[in-house]
Amino acid sequence: MTAPIRGVVPPLAIPHKDGKLDTVSLKRHINRMIDAGIHALFVLGSSGEVVFSTSQRRGEILEATQSIVEGRIRVIAGVIDTETDRVIEHIRQAESFGVDAVVATAPFYALQGEAEIYRHFRTLREATDLPLWAYDIPVCVHTKLSNRLLMDLGTQGVLSGVKDSSGDDVAFRWLARANEEAGHPLQLLTGHEVVVDGAYMSGADGAVPGLGNVDPHAYVRMWDAFQAGDWERVRQEQDRLADLMRIVQVSGVQGFGAGIGAFKTALKLLGVFDTNDMPTPVKPLEGENVAWVESVLRQTGMLD
Amino acid sequence: MTAPIRGVVPPLAIPHKDGKLDTVSLKRHINRMIDAGIHALFVLGSSGEVVFSTSQRRGEILEATQSIVEGRIRVIAGVIDTETDRVIEHIRQAESFGVDAVVATAPFYALQGEAEIYRHFRTLREATDLPLWAYDIPVCVHTKLSNRLLMDLGTQGVLSGVKDSSGDDVAFRWLARANEEAGHPLQLLTGHEVVVDGAYMSGADGAVPGLGNVDPHAYVRMWDAFQAGDWERVRQEQDRLADLMRIVQVSGVQGFGAGIGAFKTALKLLGVFDTNDMPTPVKPLEGENVAWVESVLRQTGMLD
Amino acid sequence: MTAPIRGVVPPLAIPHKDGKLDTVSLKRHINRMIDAGIHALFVLGSSGEVVFSTSQRRGEILEATQSIVEGRIRVIAGVIDTETDRVIEHIRQAESFGVDAVVATAPFYALQGEAEIYRHFRTLREATDLPLWAYDIPVCVHTKLSNRLLMDLGTQGVLSGVKDSSGDDVAFRWLARANEEAGHPLQLLTGHEVVVDGAYMSGADGAVPGLGNVDPHAYVRMWDAFQAGDWERVRQEQDRLADLMRIVQVSGVQGFGAGIGAFKTALKLLGVFDTNDMPTPVKPLEGENVAWVESVLRQTGMLD
Amino acid sequence: MTAPIRGVVPPLAIPHKDGKLDTVSLKRHINRMIDAGIHALFVLGSSGEVVFSTSQRRGEILEATQSIVEGRIRVIAGVIDTETDRVIEHIRQAESFGVDAVVATAPFYALQGEAEIYRHFRTLREATDLPLWAYDIPVCVHTKLSNRLLMDLGTQGVLSGVKDSSGDDVAFRWLARANEEAGHPLQLLTGHEVVVDGAYMSGADGAVPGLGNVDPHAYVRMWDAFQAGDWERVRQEQDRLADLMRIVQVSGVQGFGAGIGAFKTALKLLGVFDTNDMPTPVKPLEGENVAWVESVLRQTGMLD
Repeated sequence: MTAPIRGVVPPLAIPHKDGKLDTVSLKRHINRMIDAGIHALFVLGSSGEVVFSTSQRRGEILEATQSIVEGRIRVIAGVIDTETDRVIEHIRQAESFGVDAVVATAPFYALQGEAEIYRHFRTLREATDLPLWAYDIPVCVHTKLSNRLLMDLGTQGVLSGVKDSSGDDVAFRWLARANEEAGHPLQLLTGHEVVVDGAYMSGADGAVPGLGNVDPHAYVRMWDAFQAGDWERVRQEQDRLADLMRIVQVSGVQGFGAGIGAFKTALKLLGVFDTNDMPTPVKPLEGENVAWVESVLRQTGMLD
Repeated sequence: MTAPIRGVVPPLAIPHKDGKLDTVSLKRHINRMIDAGIHALFVLGSSGEVVFSTSQRRGEILEATQSIVEGRIRVIAGVIDTETDRVIEHIRQAESFGVDAVVATAPFYALQGEAEIYRHFRTLREATDLPLWAYDIPVCVHTKLSNRLLMDLGTQGVLSGVKDSSGDDVAFRWLARANEEAGHPLQLLTGHEVVVDGAYMSGADGAVPGLGNVDPHAYVRMWDAFQAGDWERVRQEQDRLADLMRIVQVSGVQGFGAGIGAFKTALKLLGVFDTNDMPTPVKPLEGENVAWVESVLRQTGMLD
Repeated sequence: MTAPIRGVVPPLAIPHKDGKLDTVSLKRHINRMIDAGIHALFVLGSSGEVVFSTSQRRGEILEATQSIVEGRIRVIAGVIDTETDRVIEHIRQAESFGVDAVVATAPFYALQGEAEIYRHFRTLREATDLPLWAYDIPVCVHTKLSNRLLMDLGTQGVLSGVKDSSGDDVAFRWLARANEEAGHPLQLLTGHEVVVDGAYMSGADGAVPGLGNVDPHAYVRMWDAFQAGDWERVRQEQDRLADLMRIVQVSGVQGFGAGIGAFKTALKLLGVFDTNDMPTPVKPLEGENVAWVESVLRQTGMLD
Repeated sequence: MTAPIRGVVPPLAIPHKDGKLDTVSLKRHINRMIDAGIHALFVLGSSGEVVFSTSQRRGEILEATQSIVEGRIRVIAGVIDTETDRVIEHIRQAESFGVDAVVATAPFYALQGEAEIYRHFRTLREATDLPLWAYDIPVCVHTKLSNRLLMDLGTQGVLSGVKDSSGDDVAFRWLARANEEAGHPLQLLTGHEVVVDGAYMSGADGAVPGLGNVDPHAYVRMWDAFQAGDWERVRQEQDRLADLMRIVQVSGVQGFGAGIGAFKTALKLLGVFDTNDMPTPVKPLEGENVAWVESVLRQTGMLD
């Protein structure tokens, strides 16, 4: 029986070069994060281009990641697709690359109710021996996983954890309270890199910060301060990371192109990625948006 | 140069048996609709379980459909997936089975803006020689395709048509007007089976009625009346079909499970499908919901 | 017992001058619409600035309207406010000016469920002897009135009619069907001026077209054609009115400022209103937006 | 020049008796909260029935509140209505009762853009000498006030503070950071009583907790711990208050009826209110819902 996954678990941003996976940059990137002390890695998440990637590309990403990580930390794989049977295909692939756990969302695209979400997760549970996490990201899936469903599936052994990107800090607090009452069946990780301190206050077991691709050291420092009970330090680290997160406040680009676009641009400026290329149909940040990212990196001490 | 697709184009409901595609029921079903006079067939649409189907299952559906249709009518295939590269995989598969056109939505799951939607459709256009249609279904995709985008892509030869399931009849009227002004570059089909008469008033070139799986004859009669300028007949057919559509008003089930669940249940009651089985994680209608479907079929003369 | 209200019932746009109600323009405007043959008038609707108006201003509008109309047609008054007791204040005021019916929305601002909406309309029903209509406008109220609720309240004598601005033509068709089955307890008027023909196909008893402020004659012609069963004429009138409605497609302005702003600008250009002034905090259309309205008026034959 | 308002500022729940304002219970309630050490009082907020209250009722509430408070703490009044001119009427009334500041939302019901929101707040600023706060509550108003707008209006002296009930803790963190950079022109109070600790981490100047009506002492203790830098104590108080807040998780009632209904029921069970009556059309909690509130009060030590 292994220890539960907790701490800082960045969702891996994917470097491209000439339309292909850039394994050289990927190695630099993963090693930099492991050296910073991250506790696990989340591959093929929303930030990790899972929905942009064909099955072949997903295989390339999983293979490269595992060969770089070499077991130094645990790897959780996103198995995110529209409906159950397709998710099970992702699970089979992830299993074949020896990941440590899988993370699935509720079904999306087809409209459904909560009964189908229960059946979805239970079917996935029966389809694999790997720990199964739920990914609550209503901004993409357009369904909020209720606390009742999460606690039911947690106490029944269907789910091992929750990656919460719901943006609903009130529900998260109640989830954390219910989880405590039930003996902590679920590991609760927050995906909101700007308010990780509040999530720690609420009882989060860790974070999956997209911005952790850019500054993994700070998220590890914040975690260590949290573990030490040094809340002022937690808050200071978070304030600085909130300032750093302003790299995503670019002009004329929304959503994935702004967020992951800014992370990749920062990683290029930091010398970690060779390009800030994005998957089709998204364009990389250009011109004044690159200058903006650079200026924020300077203001926050990431660049001299 | 072939004539544009118009008229009644039902989105094919998929019969299951013992967890597999039921090709015997499928043959009965497709032949019944062709005999009723439908003008083309839309396979692998939202109703046609595209997002529930693995690549292998999609291949089985395309193969069976084409071998049953045998060129009697044209077949349009849904190529619906989260992002461009995955949609292109669907296109390659659809091409390999010799379909006549493909229908794609805007990207979904990852948040994006309109620039990415333009690039998405233009990239698809370059990836195939088949006619490309846009599928506007914001209830699933969570983006409404703007009339400006549709007309731009229509006049530029990127798009050949639009399947409108937007639920926005005001925008549809303006789209039809703009399309007329521009020389009718786009074929406009409505997906709202309850108000096809209004769409014909607005200038629709046809309909993609899910309910056409259940009563294809009535939709063909409505189309013929429209072509003959017999609006009172159009209206009467639509009123009866609106009554028939109440089969979807079941209890305790939402969305796909209610809508497609009712269509399959009706087809089973009509002796066309052997089962009303649904794809995982959706359950077939049961008990009083089946009785409800049956009662509506009787009230509307579909069953004695 | 008076005949039910049906036909063309424009929602009265309000002329301003120097920050006050411009009764001279109002008289010109109302007389022009009555001369065009409209069947009733809807005062203090969403277009009629009800939510911008203090109690005093509402009184001025009601008084001026009634003194101009002088009983030539019936006047329905919007009694639109956040919750029941405040709506009853509007009802008392409307009664004092002798209106023929009142129209109320569901409660808004405070979040509630359907039970409260039932109680709201029933309480209003007990508070007045005037016919009570429901106004279904979820884009403003953020609640869709269900067909079940409307039919319950219609058959129970609580509601006399529905002004449907729901944008949900599918639900409207089913409402019309259910209303027929129940013996037509409700008068059903559509608020969507661009697809009135489809609403007539669905069984609407009339329309409340904002654009009827600008071209009341065309809406009356469309109604007359509908009554005569001349659907081709209905459709032609609607097509032209859809083109005219493009006056609202202005730049840099959204919602009320665009829609009512364009109606007032058109009325000024047509010589009916002296100004196109808008209530605080909305600005009147200016510059190229005025030019756009003028160009559409010319293209549709409203101006030479 | 007075000190800015900060600390615990409960939104006053309103006791009813026989359809009237129950001033006896109100006195007990306000005195209990002042004795607990609250720092100011927010009257006529969303919880305070502003949208349920006629002008006369609002006057009664303001008069009774002021005569009970007698200047012991400052009183902020909600001036919440659909559009600018109506809000100014609320301001005049609030001024006449000598309140210390007013709080307004963006316009609602009529659809508009951000330019109108700027003009709205600027017009209100010119209409009064009282400090003006913005109330960001998109769940009611259906518009999120952007950080850019709030900071613009803050640095320009239009706004003195923000009551944030946006549910967007990420935006709130960035707002707090921008406010610090600009020299703290705005006082920032959070309305989310379940995650006040996270808001304090983010830099909030206080809280407007609806639950503070029920347990003002705990919110004051949490504030004091925050001021003393005792974050563990802050967190413990918040955890218990999160548990107490479960009183709102009742069955068959949504929104205002559940939330304020539970607060009033708790206050009745605590002997502060004589009834848990609600404004029309909302019903008070009954039966098992009352039992639920009571059980939570016991579990959290509010009742023996």
